[in-house]
Amino acid sequence: MLDTNVVAADVSLIREKSPLVHNITNYVVMNNTANALLALGASPVMAHAVEEVEAMVRLAKLVGGALVINMGTLSPQWVDAMELAMKTARAQHVPIVFDPVGAGATPYRTESCQRLLQANAPSIIRGNASEIMSLTQANVQTKGVDSASSTDAAREAADQLARAFDCVVTVSGEVDVVTDGCQRIEIRQGHAMMARVTGLGCTASALIGAFAAVQSDLLLAAAHAMTVMGVAGEVAASKSPGPGSLQMHFLDALYQMDEKLLSE
Amino acid sequence: MLDTNVVAADVSLIREKSPLVHNITNYVVMNNTANALLALGASPVMAHAVEEVEAMVRLAKLVGGALVINMGTLSPQWVDAMELAMKTARAQHVPIVFDPVGAGATPYRTESCQRLLQANAPSIIRGNASEIMSLTQANVQTKGVDSASSTDAAREAADQLARAFDCVVTVSGEVDVVTDGCQRIEIRQGHAMMARVTGLGCTASALIGAFAAVQSDLLLAAAHAMTVMGVAGEVAASKSPGPGSLQMHFLDALYQMDEKLLSE
Amino acid sequence: MLDTNVVAADVSLIREKSPLVHNITNYVVMNNTANALLALGASPVMAHAVEEVEAMVRLAKLVGGALVINMGTLSPQWVDAMELAMKTARAQHVPIVFDPVGAGATPYRTESCQRLLQANAPSIIRGNASEIMSLTQANVQTKGVDSASSTDAAREAADQLARAFDCVVTVSGEVDVVTDGCQRIEIRQGHAMMARVTGLGCTASALIGAFAAVQSDLLLAAAHAMTVMGVAGEVAASKSPGPGSLQMHFLDALYQMDEKLLSE
Repeated sequence: MLDTNVVAADVSLIREKSPLVHNITNYVVMNNTANALLALGASPVMAHAVEEVEAMVRLAKLVGGALVINMGTLSPQWVDAMELAMKTARAQHVPIVFDPVGAGATPYRTESCQRLLQANAPSIIRGNASEIMSLTQANVQTKGVDSASSTDAAREAADQLARAFDCVVTVSGEVDVVTDGCQRIEIRQGHAMMARVTGLGCTASALIGAFAAVQSDLLLAAAHAMTVMGVAGEVAASKSPGPGSLQMHFLDALYQMDEKLLSE
Repeated sequence: MLDTNVVAADVSLIREKSPLVHNITNYVVMNNTANALLALGASPVMAHAVEEVEAMVRLAKLVGGALVINMGTLSPQWVDAMELAMKTARAQHVPIVFDPVGAGATPYRTESCQRLLQANAPSIIRGNASEIMSLTQANVQTKGVDSASSTDAAREAADQLARAFDCVVTVSGEVDVVTDGCQRIEIRQGHAMMARVTGLGCTASALIGAFAAVQSDLLLAAAHAMTVMGVAGEVAASKSPGPGSLQMHFLDALYQMDEKLLSE
Repeated sequence: MLDTNVVAADVSLIREKSPLVHNITNYVVMNNTANALLALGASPVMAHAVEEVEAMVRLAKLVGGALVINMGTLSPQWVDAMELAMKTARAQHVPIVFDPVGAGATPYRTESCQRLLQANAPSIIRGNASEIMSLTQANVQTKGVDSASSTDAAREAADQLARAFDCVVTVSGEVDVVTDGCQRIEIRQGHAMMARVTGLGCTASALIGAFAAVQSDLLLAAAHAMTVMGVAGEVAASKSPGPGSLQMHFLDALYQMDEKLLSE
């Protein structure tokens, strides 16, 4: 069980420091993730041109921040920029969150994820069960980008991936699992209706970026972000007759997130 | 008059089968259309790289689904990917929905639509009156992407287009018309405020994709989708002082859509 | 103090004429800005392909409209299209609004802004304090895209920029300042929570485009747009427990904007 005081302390740090979270992410969720980061108190930047990603990562280093790489609507030019940004972030010790959206759905997607991972290990990987499994196995076929079941196989794959890249891995699902290959934290929060809003997985990855910018224990950074996601989702779902309302109340809940909400 | 039981049965099928709707669509509406598909129960994927569209269409074939092509923010690379995706879908017998956003507004837009249509006929075309007319006439100038009047000329153009490409054509407007060139269905639902929310036309095209994945009678698939759009729009408008609220309530209404809502 | 009758008269003109606002803008805010323009009564078009921007600007000339250039997620191809669109708009006397999002954050961003400004002067520039200062000074480092403080230095930079390009400059902040280099108008409206919603600055630029299409006094066009932004933001904030709600109520308020709301 995570200590809600410690989660709340990280939220306060995000509001105080307003870390610059540099996202190279997909077209579908850019607006959501920017809004979620702003609602929580972080400072989002979206920049993907190969001409500027190095400078943007250096700026994140200078002012404090993180890099979030999301494969949702990938294309060769974007993957090149992602690789350059990840290389710069590794060299500058800026935390890197990697979201392998849809890995396993097509060979191009799986291979591009592998290429980026092999070139520069991220600090934290977050995906659903099938995405995480596809990064360790060649024979997993993902159905689109929203399928997820946190099976034992997925947990095993997550541990394996964490050890292979010396990073933290988060598997989103009914129960979220965060692992560094040795230690596992489970988060049992959230609501089924969250799966009916596009990009909440991507939002989780972006928020992990904000937490990683202020919390140097990356296992805790990921676990705290998933806790805040889950609590905000529960608060929002309790007020929402459908996913349209949920999206709105979710942002309001991030804005209001504090020790009281976290401990309810 | 459409039988609301039959429309509701298609909605249930979408929820049960969760068809994969592969969208190559515009930047403006990606988030809306993904959310609308999720709210209704379908499984949206956005993927546009020429490196993966063939594999994604084959995945849609494998698990059941449809391809939706939307010209909203076209550029040469995207049009190439659209052509390849449509070619694959034709070969694989995956239903193709084609949305000629802004056809008639610029020569590049009109010519790109013609190029795609000539190369691979879609299963269903959906547009507003001026867009549909611009695909059959050289001398129609569209004012932007949101103009629409369902005139007799538009109906005639729709019939002509349906016969030319052996497909179903939907003309959105105050009264929606669906035609296969022989038979016309009119849908008199919806609300004027819907025109003040961006991308509801594009959302209609995306939902037609979901219906076409579960309903093999494409005339009915399009008519059922437009009925669900109209009913969701009416339900939402009745609760909304403006278009911001309408967008939220519209997603909630899709989530709640059932025989009862449809028959009110 | 601006006359609310005159502001309301411009709003009525926008609803009556529904000017075509051609946006070449960033991926993050396309949906917001399209919705804001529609809510107010304008007719948004997003088109960025170098193959069609000339034709789209000519269409804006033909039916009445404006061009809005926003640097948010720039890349070389998009900057090329922006330059061509601005050149066409200058030649056609279509008003150009320029939003230097994130200028100062990276050299590529600052240089691209300078390149566009030097090639074709815009009619109106809108940015936050650090963005505006970065266009006149080489040594300003912007922290991302959302930092803003309307200091004396920013006002001085705005005047200098206005005189250099013979245009109107708007500096957004707690107090908005609009200047043509000789005359300054201050707008003291809005709400702090607006900074927690992504793209409201970009929305301001888009709305300035709508006003510039109907109001030939560009100083007033910018000031009226900022007034409407501020009033809509205040109305929305008064109903909103967080930024998710604010975004929704903001669009509703634009839809309802009238002399009564403006004078409250």
